[in-house]
Amino acid sequence: MEQKKQNPKAEDETQIVSRRIQRISLHITPIPRPLHDHDSNLEPAKYFAIVEAIGAVDISLGIKLGVQYSLWGGSVINLGTKKHKDKYFEKIDSLEYPGCFAMTELHHGSNVQGIQTVATFDPITDEFTINTPNDGAIKWWIGNAAVHGKFASVFAKLMLPTHDAKGVSDMGVHAFIVPLRDLKTHQALPGIEIHDCGHKVGLNGVDNGALRFTSVRIPRDNLLNRFGDVSRDGKYTSSLPTINKRFAATLGELVGGRVGLASSSVGVLKIANTIAIRYSLLRQQFGPPKQPEISILDYQSQQHKLMPMLASTYAFHFATVYLVDIYSQMKITHNEQLVGDVHALSAGIKAYVTSYTAKSLSVCREACGGHGYAAVNRFGTLRNDHDIFQTFEGDNTVLLQQVAADLLKQYKEKFQGGTLAVTWNYLRESMNTYLSQPNPVTSRWEGAEHLQDPKFQLDAFRYRTSRLLQSAAVRLRKHSKILGGFGAWNRCLNHLLTLAESHIESVILAKFIEAVEKCPDPNSQAALKLVCDLYALNRIWNDIGTYRNVDYVAPNKAKAIHKLTDYLSFQVRNIAKELVDAFDLPDHVTRAPIAMQSEAYAQYKQYVGF
Amino acid sequence: MEQKKQNPKAEDETQIVSRRIQRISLHITPIPRPLHDHDSNLEPAKYFAIVEAIGAVDISLGIKLGVQYSLWGGSVINLGTKKHKDKYFEKIDSLEYPGCFAMTELHHGSNVQGIQTVATFDPITDEFTINTPNDGAIKWWIGNAAVHGKFASVFAKLMLPTHDAKGVSDMGVHAFIVPLRDLKTHQALPGIEIHDCGHKVGLNGVDNGALRFTSVRIPRDNLLNRFGDVSRDGKYTSSLPTINKRFAATLGELVGGRVGLASSSVGVLKIANTIAIRYSLLRQQFGPPKQPEISILDYQSQQHKLMPMLASTYAFHFATVYLVDIYSQMKITHNEQLVGDVHALSAGIKAYVTSYTAKSLSVCREACGGHGYAAVNRFGTLRNDHDIFQTFEGDNTVLLQQVAADLLKQYKEKFQGGTLAVTWNYLRESMNTYLSQPNPVTSRWEGAEHLQDPKFQLDAFRYRTSRLLQSAAVRLRKHSKILGGFGAWNRCLNHLLTLAESHIESVILAKFIEAVEKCPDPNSQAALKLVCDLYALNRIWNDIGTYRNVDYVAPNKAKAIHKLTDYLSFQVRNIAKELVDAFDLPDHVTRAPIAMQSEAYAQYKQYVGF
Repeated sequence: MEQKKQNPKAEDETQIVSRRIQRISLHITPIPRPLHDHDSNLEPAKYFAIVEAIGAVDISLGIKLGVQYSLWGGSVINLGTKKHKDKYFEKIDSLEYPGCFAMTELHHGSNVQGIQTVATFDPITDEFTINTPNDGAIKWWIGNAAVHGKFASVFAKLMLPTHDAKGVSDMGVHAFIVPLRDLKTHQALPGIEIHDCGHKVGLNGVDNGALRFTSVRIPRDNLLNRFGDVSRDGKYTSSLPTINKRFAATLGELVGGRVGLASSSVGVLKIANTIAIRYSLLRQQFGPPKQPEISILDYQSQQHKLMPMLASTYAFHFATVYLVDIYSQMKITHNEQLVGDVHALSAGIKAYVTSYTAKSLSVCREACGGHGYAAVNRFGTLRNDHDIFQTFEGDNTVLLQQVAADLLKQYKEKFQGGTLAVTWNYLRESMNTYLSQPNPVTSRWEGAEHLQDPKFQLDAFRYRTSRLLQSAAVRLRKHSKILGGFGAWNRCLNHLLTLAESHIESVILAKFIEAVEKCPDPNSQAALKLVCDLYALNRIWNDIGTYRNVDYVAPNKAKAIHKLTDYLSFQVRNIAKELVDAFDLPDHVTRAPIAMQSEAYAQYKQYVGF
Repeated sequence: MEQKKQNPKAEDETQIVSRRIQRISLHITPIPRPLHDHDSNLEPAKYFAIVEAIGAVDISLGIKLGVQYSLWGGSVINLGTKKHKDKYFEKIDSLEYPGCFAMTELHHGSNVQGIQTVATFDPITDEFTINTPNDGAIKWWIGNAAVHGKFASVFAKLMLPTHDAKGVSDMGVHAFIVPLRDLKTHQALPGIEIHDCGHKVGLNGVDNGALRFTSVRIPRDNLLNRFGDVSRDGKYTSSLPTINKRFAATLGELVGGRVGLASSSVGVLKIANTIAIRYSLLRQQFGPPKQPEISILDYQSQQHKLMPMLASTYAFHFATVYLVDIYSQMKITHNEQLVGDVHALSAGIKAYVTSYTAKSLSVCREACGGHGYAAVNRFGTLRNDHDIFQTFEGDNTVLLQQVAADLLKQYKEKFQGGTLAVTWNYLRESMNTYLSQPNPVTSRWEGAEHLQDPKFQLDAFRYRTSRLLQSAAVRLRKHSKILGGFGAWNRCLNHLLTLAESHIESVILAKFIEAVEKCPDPNSQAALKLVCDLYALNRIWNDIGTYRNVDYVAPNKAKAIHKLTDYLSFQVRNIAKELVDAFDLPDHVTRAPIAMQSEAYAQYKQYVGF
């Protein structure tokens, strides 16, 4: 409208540009062979691309896949040894052995070390006995359990008889393969009680069940014994010295699930963006007096709702591609620094991305008004199915604390002259340069060239993280003297969560800037640059109070950032169609009638019966 | 935990205090007579209390009630005249005439003046003919239409034959009573095509239908003729001079629906708070080394999620009580200033409250982890059913613009020496006092006594609104020279939405402060004061960038506000149980097993089948 007239070239230019954005590395390569091939080289990039693609069609199916391969299959392969692989691998791969991952209990979710199910070794029969000692220890929410699972990897405290055979000693949480149902009749085996957990907010295509074990006997061989083993005569051996280290190693092997959830969440966000933006282009409402109505995407308010979201979707895409990449490298090299990096990043990116997607699905529904509320247009199902991504495989609030803890560990090691994980590298210099007083000259620079300079943007993100890290360390030290470690952590918890989010945002921005720099086509690069700038400046504006408070940004600059963010939203709106087309989601995948690329209203009417 | 130890008295004191908070004006009085009594004195306070109470049990039922009484009944009573009341009132009241409110069309929701259904007067038969001229004009989302409705008040453009009888002239949107189904057989009448709109994200207890009219004839008397009438010989008469004024009067009569939605939304928020907080008190997870696990509500992060929300619920409660009160006064006095005030406030409070509740329902689900995802624990249904509150009876983004437009109108009138609506009164002084440079001395005051002074809080809220209002006026004037009115409005849209929200927040705070001051019991008053402070300071902190940017708040004060907000969350946590008990929602209304006041886990297990 009026705005467009001011910038008459914008549309022509950007239309050309954006034709070329299409398929920028977003296309999913076909899969030539089974998900798990025989040498256990999982080809993670392909696997996660499949997870993303399937989730876009049906999230329940994607989660069923994840339970079977990442959780059940992944626990057998990563926590077990050769004997388990030989016995189970092919049958898990072929779905002959559908299985579950039985970790969570009614009373214990996040606090896995608090679970109460016990596996007691019986040296006479060379077996473990699995027991649910009380109702709070009933395994709960176990995916695949209510209907399909024939096996479960059950997490339980390993109990060994003491030397004098008068008691047992607790060796900590281990995983055990427990057959749940008869392979032929599919009846629950003796001592195993299974109930369906009932209707859920969403994801009802996944059969979550609750399991109680009463003296269930399994052979000693069913202990997944990579990190700890029991000999025929009841002796415990482990390459790792303490319960805590074994526990960390056990859980550490499960990061793949988080990488999958992050990828899948980005896929869901792409679908939601595509539907909301295509409809917002189609839908017209109000207009200047005596002129035709205008697309609702031409309203500044709609741009404000959807364009930073579109920018974030691109940002998350590149961040998860990077995450999959370092995860794959880690699986090949077993490099210890990479292990730490992948662990913290998968936790942080999973938490950050799934929280953002969950909020965005509500924004998209609302942005599409009444027609966004029709079930056929999918926002309801997407939101309800995706919602639990924030909770399972690690509650987001807990995961972000892992990121904060890791940052603090790195921070301390830095002072002791240690090395830093790759993604944390920036902290090395930041502690020196960023923590000096902000420069009173640059804090006033407000030109677009400066604000769109990746160096300014990245510096701003990293400055914030560095300050939050340093002040968190100081506060924790102060409070722990009086409150102890646990109390001090809790007293600083909101601060620590902000720190973790800030760090993850800066990693995401760094990867986005890299992607822009590496983009081979100059027109696509120019378009991506706009999107990246919007991501960066919108985030800075969202936390402008922090920047203002230390005069990192002067009042005039704060105003300029705000203004430029609105203008970038408008510019990105002009290539919004092409940016969503580049996600390459055909109508038979998006499915929402209001987002059909031709005859949207006609298909919608037909659905209702006209 | 540690925090409690520092403040050993807190719990004892607050327990006593909060016993007494119970039932502070939140109890719903029983209804002694029909909703609409014969002299059409609707007793709004009772009606809206019923709406809130029913919505807490089942939102669909609440909306069915609202469609029948507020929309269908309300349109007949408020847009019709005595003849309509005589003929329809009792049968609407007794449910013999279930009806619909047929305004929205497939292509037109917010832009009601753009609807295309036509009602053409036929002077030969003394009838109107109702027609759906194209598919975009199909009435869509009409509640009660798919299954139950026997009548509808249909909004259509009134077309009168011109003097020469060669054409028709468009008199603008009017409402008409159109019989939809045979009173005995319940079959759709000739010319009326009805389809079910299909499954929705939620609210599937409401039968939304789509309607097409093909030459449907109704008597001239079926025109709801309070604001415009047609005589036997086809002459149009109205007490109002223009189409726009008649349109405004017509829509103005429908504000009751918004008051109802705001009340109902607060009811939903109370339910969600109750479930989330009761579960957060019950649920324990992690704890200091070798000590028992602690309630998750003892985590600062959980307090951060839930305590400002609890404070907002109290704030919204008092605000909607006030809204109902001025609405009732308006219905009795027809005072013109009140009409304007109720119109803008009902739009603004409906928008603000329903957006907040929608977001909160997601926060509550997530805060309750996996068990929050069990359908039986209600967050899914509450969220899905409530979601559309943001859209129907006026899209929130559109409603906030009405608030902004009203503020700008008042602002202009002020400069012309006019009077201000009651709620807007503060703007009179604010333009003089608030818009001077912030006081460099008070901007540094950081003591708790100052920050908890209602004068500081209210001044801060009003200062922000005044600045936003003044700068919006300046920007609109500047841009409209180049872009025209429509373009300028759009260019400033985000600014205008922030202005509207800021104003509504300050009205809500003012009413909360009044409620605290009026609270008769000193202990309850002390508790409510904490809650009110948390509401106020949390909002100031959320927009700290704005305050910092003009140095209304100096860096040390910003820090102090942040710190005090966390501490107030902790203090409110210590009386959280009593604050939710005061909502007086018994277990058979909350229903979620995880929120049962005794044996929560046992009831939950039982639900699953153990």
